[in-house]
Amino acid sequence: MLVTKFAIPEIIFGKGSVKHLAPCARRLGARRVLLVSDAGLEKAGWVDMIKGLLEEDRIDCVYFSNVDSNPRDHQVHEGAALYKDAQADVIVGLGGGSPIDAAKGIATIAGNGGQIRDYEGANKIMRPLPPMIFIPSTAGSGSDMSQYSIITDVERQVKMSIISRSLVPNLSIIDPTMLTTKTSELIIASGVDAFAHAVESYVSRAASPFTEHQALLAIRLILDNMGEAVSTRSLQALEQLSIASTAAGMSFSNAGLGIGHSLAHSVGGRYDVLHGLVHPILLPVVMRFNLPAAKEKMARIGREILGPQVCPVGSLAEKGIEALHELFVSLGVTTRLRDILPTNSELEPLCRMAVRDTCTVTNPRDAHWSDLARICEEAW
Amino acid sequence: MLVTKFAIPEIIFGKGSVKHLAPCARRLGARRVLLVSDAGLEKAGWVDMIKGLLEEDRIDCVYFSNVDSNPRDHQVHEGAALYKDAQADVIVGLGGGSPIDAAKGIATIAGNGGQIRDYEGANKIMRPLPPMIFIPSTAGSGSDMSQYSIITDVERQVKMSIISRSLVPNLSIIDPTMLTTKTSELIIASGVDAFAHAVESYVSRAASPFTEHQALLAIRLILDNMGEAVSTRSLQALEQLSIASTAAGMSFSNAGLGIGHSLAHSVGGRYDVLHGLVHPILLPVVMRFNLPAAKEKMARIGREILGPQVCPVGSLAEKGIEALHELFVSLGVTTRLRDILPTNSELEPLCRMAVRDTCTVTNPRDAHWSDLARICEEAW
Repeated sequence: MLVTKFAIPEIIFGKGSVKHLAPCARRLGARRVLLVSDAGLEKAGWVDMIKGLLEEDRIDCVYFSNVDSNPRDHQVHEGAALYKDAQADVIVGLGGGSPIDAAKGIATIAGNGGQIRDYEGANKIMRPLPPMIFIPSTAGSGSDMSQYSIITDVERQVKMSIISRSLVPNLSIIDPTMLTTKTSELIIASGVDAFAHAVESYVSRAASPFTEHQALLAIRLILDNMGEAVSTRSLQALEQLSIASTAAGMSFSNAGLGIGHSLAHSVGGRYDVLHGLVHPILLPVVMRFNLPAAKEKMARIGREILGPQVCPVGSLAEKGIEALHELFVSLGVTTRLRDILPTNSELEPLCRMAVRDTCTVTNPRDAHWSDLARICEEAW
Repeated sequence: MLVTKFAIPEIIFGKGSVKHLAPCARRLGARRVLLVSDAGLEKAGWVDMIKGLLEEDRIDCVYFSNVDSNPRDHQVHEGAALYKDAQADVIVGLGGGSPIDAAKGIATIAGNGGQIRDYEGANKIMRPLPPMIFIPSTAGSGSDMSQYSIITDVERQVKMSIISRSLVPNLSIIDPTMLTTKTSELIIASGVDAFAHAVESYVSRAASPFTEHQALLAIRLILDNMGEAVSTRSLQALEQLSIASTAAGMSFSNAGLGIGHSLAHSVGGRYDVLHGLVHPILLPVVMRFNLPAAKEKMARIGREILGPQVCPVGSLAEKGIEALHELFVSLGVTTRLRDILPTNSELEPLCRMAVRDTCTVTNPRDAHWSDLARICEEAW
């Protein structure tokens, strides 16, 4: 095994864990927090709740909510200006992947100056960031665990991957009760995103025993709990999905992803499509493309999906991918690209863009833009 | 599930990873490092190697090696005085559990003043510690991962457990090539220590899905690789033991241990016995005592030891414990307490001391000192 790195934030996990926020922020030196969130979390009452927790402990709170579901570069710059003007000292991100990715972008500019596009790619952040605490409100993005921030460059219509050890927050506070105010659609989209993180990082070129193990845990927990979480909304099942999303986050943050995410970033940058909608469409097709380069591992995933089977490795892998596609169909999500894109006439530039995404580097099988185009056509 | 916390250091793992030391130390602000190690590592050439790596990168290195195999309070104070006098700014611990535990004690005094006994127990460290990088030279103690430092109070003849989030280092650099200079006896003693960490933390009252998963990984890897690591010394098997020890460290650091470690600390404090010799003797007896409070989990361990079995949970657990005892016998280590203690006439004070150890708190079954005495008698 080559030298591998593994870094995760400190974690506080469980029902009611959000109540630990204020003392933790204080431990990081907080006197005035910049809270980054969005309208959905305001409506569900979580933003007021968080503000209340901070204020009770006499920590000032400045609030920034101009964050789209695919956060934009100018929003990051606006948030960073607010952080500076308000003389804040700690950044708290509350939300799904979008507010948390935006909070990471804001922290990057606050600590390093310049424009967010200056940090696109891996390991471009050179100076320290302000302390960060993230509170995920979905069980999917894993952004509260990860070294990734995905920000849309509006001018180029690109979702930039910014990847740095510095983007791992000091602390992630994961409270599964946050999930109780989410729609079933969002729980599914988030769970499938986490599943895609687990699968892509499991077969990644940079996977290590530390990450593979987390990926398999996530795969198993999502398969075991997604149905119940959606149909009964039981807190117990939602909690298991939170554990899965956290494990998948630990895995992909350290092992990287693959061309499924390269394509999802490209599609999201060009058409502003919700990230979680892309994976049920692309993941099975991407897995089939990667099969020759990761047969044993795909069979292991197949065994998780199908249970113990007496059949050759290749066929177990194939059957698993087919069963996964059927599972997505049964969840009622779209599995055709034509349902979320306005046209298939722009697949070439989309795929030429995707093949340059950082996630392509760790894909287990070499991929040309024309391979990605074939994947899109198969999924059309 | 109740609220649970999970904290681990950043990890760099793999053959040759030790070469990352100097840039990592520099990233933490190092200009003059206090290196804590011992005579065994000097002899094996590792101390000179580490000094060389730092000096090549123009980082000064002050060396402290007055560390016994159960590090003493006065050694910690001596090291802390050297840290201060030398105006060092980062602490590097190189070794098995003893130099690393000593390094943690030194960091505690360097950052907080006073005497090391002031910090006995949980969460007594209030001020920040100097940056710490640990390089484990055994696959066992897990001290490079953990919130624990075990220091002997010479006057009271007690091994104190000092437990704090602050004792988790900034970075653990785990290079399995370090294991190649170790004797088979030490590989076994370390591996059994890691196995005991995994088992005790797996059944701990404070176990969480985050820790249980790591514990099971450690159990499986040690069972699968110990034999080969000892007989062939293959780097591949040693690497697997390193992964196991790291996983077990993640688990016990966050879930705590049990009365096996309470007794081991008590025995080690009174008789200066090598920690790794105690577990093959006590672990099976402790597991049998804990069985009524952790039947399902003991059966799960039994399944790891024996492979798939069709038999009732209780009997699977019992058979697993018996097989574990036989495994220890086959490794040629002593499994009787009489072989390592000079007398059984002092078991009462030993057990009265052990029952007050912090590790007793997370034991799955309530234990009185007389229960511990019965365990010692059974193991005599």
